[in-house]
Amino acid sequence: MSEHLGLDIGGAHLKASDGFTCRSVPFPLWKSPEKLTDELRRLIGQFPQARQIAATMTGELADCFESRAEGVREILSSLEEAAGSRAIRAWQTGGEFFTVAEADEFFELVASANWHALATWVGRADPGGNVLLVDFGSTTTDVIPIESEIPQPAGRTDLERLTSRELIYTGCRRTSLCSLCHEVEIDGRRYGVAAEHFATTHDVALVLETVAESPDSLDTADGRPADREHAFARLARMLCTDKDAFERTEWIRVAEQFQRAQEERIGTAIETVLNRWRCDPTVWVLAGEGEAILRKVIDNRQLAQNSRELVSLNEMLGASHSQAACAFALSRLSEERKL
Amino acid sequence: MSEHLGLDIGGAHLKASDGFTCRSVPFPLWKSPEKLTDELRRLIGQFPQARQIAATMTGELADCFESRAEGVREILSSLEEAAGSRAIRAWQTGGEFFTVAEADEFFELVASANWHALATWVGRADPGGNVLLVDFGSTTTDVIPIESEIPQPAGRTDLERLTSRELIYTGCRRTSLCSLCHEVEIDGRRYGVAAEHFATTHDVALVLETVAESPDSLDTADGRPADREHAFARLARMLCTDKDAFERTEWIRVAEQFQRAQEERIGTAIETVLNRWRCDPTVWVLAGEGEAILRKVIDNRQLAQNSRELVSLNEMLGASHSQAACAFALSRLSEERKL
Repeated sequence: MSEHLGLDIGGAHLKASDGFTCRSVPFPLWKSPEKLTDELRRLIGQFPQARQIAATMTGELADCFESRAEGVREILSSLEEAAGSRAIRAWQTGGEFFTVAEADEFFELVASANWHALATWVGRADPGGNVLLVDFGSTTTDVIPIESEIPQPAGRTDLERLTSRELIYTGCRRTSLCSLCHEVEIDGRRYGVAAEHFATTHDVALVLETVAESPDSLDTADGRPADREHAFARLARMLCTDKDAFERTEWIRVAEQFQRAQEERIGTAIETVLNRWRCDPTVWVLAGEGEAILRKVIDNRQLAQNSRELVSLNEMLGASHSQAACAFALSRLSEERKL
Repeated sequence: MSEHLGLDIGGAHLKASDGFTCRSVPFPLWKSPEKLTDELRRLIGQFPQARQIAATMTGELADCFESRAEGVREILSSLEEAAGSRAIRAWQTGGEFFTVAEADEFFELVASANWHALATWVGRADPGGNVLLVDFGSTTTDVIPIESEIPQPAGRTDLERLTSRELIYTGCRRTSLCSLCHEVEIDGRRYGVAAEHFATTHDVALVLETVAESPDSLDTADGRPADREHAFARLARMLCTDKDAFERTEWIRVAEQFQRAQEERIGTAIETVLNRWRCDPTVWVLAGEGEAILRKVIDNRQLAQNSRELVSLNEMLGASHSQAACAFALSRLSEERKL
């Protein structure tokens, strides 16, 4: 246990880590921002030793806020209420912590800065040489060059990173399949895809059996269990039909097409970042739930041929922290800087 | 007023028409299927003369139902309860009405048959010769060839129609922008687009001023008013930023790119249907909220050069019925067949 509690306040999850244990709580911020203070209070309460809170966020983009400035302000204000007498600092993409007042003033540096905290910690952990951090998370994917232990991104804000391709807003769990491709092929015919949130990349993973079923989880497009049978039904709904319209083998091929479309997007983005960087990474650090898919993309495109090794962040952190890597990183950065 | 009440039970709206007056009620079926009976009862109650109900649906695809068969059954069962002593028939894609028992048994013919009812009525109204009906609605687009007054689609179910391109699951109001394109250009730079339901095609129309503002409506991606200012904010969120990140003229160009992507999709589908049909339509009947965009697509691609005329369904029906064209068609078909 440590006095330094890292908090990552996202639009769909709240994550906390003191560098030893971590917690991840599903919390759809955009649906009930008024409950954020209570949720944060409960979460912080699980770390009674915490005296110093090191926060980052992506939740300011949730559309319950009129603007990102309002989002940063509201989230920090909820956090202040929840934190009581504990001190609060917010990570900023300049590579330091801000006080709450500074964070309010320079909200652009604090908004969606969690990737930068993680990249800073990875740099500090010094896997050696030039490092490319690729984090394929539930909602988004980050591709961050790190030189001499310091993140060297071409973009700092999400907007800049969407054009530098260091941010690809596609993930391995929450992403709507209709954002990936417009049509799929079955038995030689091409079918248009429904523009509805009927199924997500998590359903693709369930159908392809690259992720374990979690029948107790109802955090799916239709609110039904996150198991394979229901994933087939959700996938079928993308073509306005039922799962028995085709054999399972055909649906598996449909799932593969969605996955390939996403791999293509991520692979192209990684190549764009590498081409701009003009140096081969010595070490790749792969992170996020979709790490296995990243390895496949890197293999297929032979991107790491001149690299020394591919490191798993999950292994660096230990499995228990893989779900809350940014919060873990913040806890360590906070401790290191003796805030 | 007529004894014949047409009902179109969709996933997002309930629509009713007795051929003279019509009602359209927003009703998100997937969120509260248990309220369908009461909503239908209220709607039917507004037509006290109604003795005969002629129904069609698309709501069976809503993901509150495990399968489309269950959806058809549940919707008909709610309708029976709501209709009391009134007789009920359901339109089927064979071109006739079914009893409720028949509809339950042959649910594939009843599921999403509303386009067929409309095309049948358009054929009956006989604009003359070969007719192509193109209906660009809030959620989907239909392209239906009609010969000698009879619809001649290559597909009957939604699945078949997604491959025949007679159904394009993209609409001019509810469609998520992330389903339209993966990146947009601003000032020479290309930006990836967020895979979130942050903005819809209705926001594109608001930004481009091709639709009137409706500040009282909160039926938007973020639940904020359907006015132009909020549409700019929603559009900006697609790039993870605020509307003041760029000049208005730039955001207008972004909106145009989303619209062009959709026009491209619809134009290609129309050409596919025309190529298979191998005859030039004598008359085009254009329908749906997006009629003006359809005219642009047809003009730009010079698709109607050998056609006699382009007819507006809204003009054929009268403006008050344009929002409930399928329900209107059903009322007339029911009366004509003296059910």
